[in-house]
Amino acid sequence: MQILESAPALRETVHAWRAEGHRIAFVPTMGNLHRGHLALVERARQLADRVVVSIFVNPTQFVAGEDLESYPCTLAKDTELLTQRRVDVLFSPTVAEVYPFGLAEDQARVEVPALDGMLCGAFRPGHFRGVATVVTKLFNLVQPQFAVFGEKDYQQLLLIKRLVCELCFPITIISVPTVREPDGLAASSRNGYLSDAERRQAPKLHVVLEKAANAALRDPKDLAVIEGEGMRELACCGFRPEYFSFRRSHDLASPRHGDKHLVLLTAAWLGRTRLIDHALCENP
Amino acid sequence: MQILESAPALRETVHAWRAEGHRIAFVPTMGNLHRGHLALVERARQLADRVVVSIFVNPTQFVAGEDLESYPCTLAKDTELLTQRRVDVLFSPTVAEVYPFGLAEDQARVEVPALDGMLCGAFRPGHFRGVATVVTKLFNLVQPQFAVFGEKDYQQLLLIKRLVCELCFPITIISVPTVREPDGLAASSRNGYLSDAERRQAPKLHVVLEKAANAALRDPKDLAVIEGEGMRELACCGFRPEYFSFRRSHDLASPRHGDKHLVLLTAAWLGRTRLIDHALCENP
Repeated sequence: MQILESAPALRETVHAWRAEGHRIAFVPTMGNLHRGHLALVERARQLADRVVVSIFVNPTQFVAGEDLESYPCTLAKDTELLTQRRVDVLFSPTVAEVYPFGLAEDQARVEVPALDGMLCGAFRPGHFRGVATVVTKLFNLVQPQFAVFGEKDYQQLLLIKRLVCELCFPITIISVPTVREPDGLAASSRNGYLSDAERRQAPKLHVVLEKAANAALRDPKDLAVIEGEGMRELACCGFRPEYFSFRRSHDLASPRHGDKHLVLLTAAWLGRTRLIDHALCENP
Repeated sequence: MQILESAPALRETVHAWRAEGHRIAFVPTMGNLHRGHLALVERARQLADRVVVSIFVNPTQFVAGEDLESYPCTLAKDTELLTQRRVDVLFSPTVAEVYPFGLAEDQARVEVPALDGMLCGAFRPGHFRGVATVVTKLFNLVQPQFAVFGEKDYQQLLLIKRLVCELCFPITIISVPTVREPDGLAASSRNGYLSDAERRQAPKLHVVLEKAANAALRDPKDLAVIEGEGMRELACCGFRPEYFSFRRSHDLASPRHGDKHLVLLTAAWLGRTRLIDHALCENP
């Protein structure tokens, strides 16, 4: 596996691949790789004959006061995991490489207003602008045919799909189902922040989601009641929920009568750790 | 020359070219082609073995009250001119093709704040957001190695260069000097709006610019005085100037003592027509 840190070096490699007719699948990450990331890499490996993984802790998607400074960096271990999975290039640029004009407020930016202000976007203002901007840059650097994202970050996945469609990127977005620990907790780098007691409590998020999603399948009339019960139940389990909300699964709009394809999304704090998860809720 | 209206058809053509190793040069236009555009096309023809010209009157770069509805459309004549110049593809998409989710406020957008709020951006709020957004879409559709822009739209040219650098597009921006009529008026589609009397007056814009730029070369200390005189002189000639401003030529920042590479930019109304022009002002 080549480890590249500069944009020109990456471009040169990618250009040579393209000239030889190779297809490229890309997995953008912030490192601290876990089984969820590795499922994305394995999917990428199936899709194309060249796989690029990026590790870049993107400062512009962290809101003031968030965990940018303490975000876990495990580059040596990540490198070993990616080498084992026959990744062709690990791209781990510096901030200056991705933001050549620095991080001041006047940097070029990409926004997807249809999806960036609700749910996580409402609680993390500017987060999805940072995501859309860095993904645009990375797409232009890697120039993949496929980019692979996890369903775990459901709102992000829809936002990236819409970004690609609206801005006409010649890229197919492939999604991979959430990878869960044996007790149901969704794999996430931030799980590492949990204390032992919190870690034992954390799977409750998934349990409450599934219970509420099943209740909505049985009786889809009173979603607001089910949402309220979910918020209360999470609070009773020691979470501080930000939202617990049914949405249409394809565009995250509020459900209308008769909508059959829903998703229930939540974000909740457990101590100093913010967890997100969701459950699909598909009426037959 | 192929005339393509759909994004998938364009993609297919571009994909086949790339697979054969062809290089693509791209000239985005809003049609109503004049000698200025044709100079861009000729430059593109020198740069690459495949040339794509787009004709798309982009609604999002027109500010409310501007001339979107009356913008001149001369597709038959444009097609003939481009055919003569051996353009390979004319891409003339519908609005729905470029804005698949319509034109509501929540469309994905690209902004270059370092350059989009000053000069023309201050008088046409949102204009450069529309430009940056549509250029991003067109770049992703055409996937050129080169894109050719006129120096006539000087602020736009710098903004596109910065967009490409900041968002890491694998594209080289090539600029072509302003093409002028024999009397010095910069070629522009909007010149067609001028009455005969206005057309005779219009070259004064270039005359006043050159005179002021020369004054600044002789005595660069009091640029503000020269700017004030230029504004007054334009008003005396029947223009309603919006700005007449010296800037650093590489980033449009206000000049600091000792800056040697300046540009003098102006926008001025003549009757119902808004004209822009500039003069480079390079101290030896």
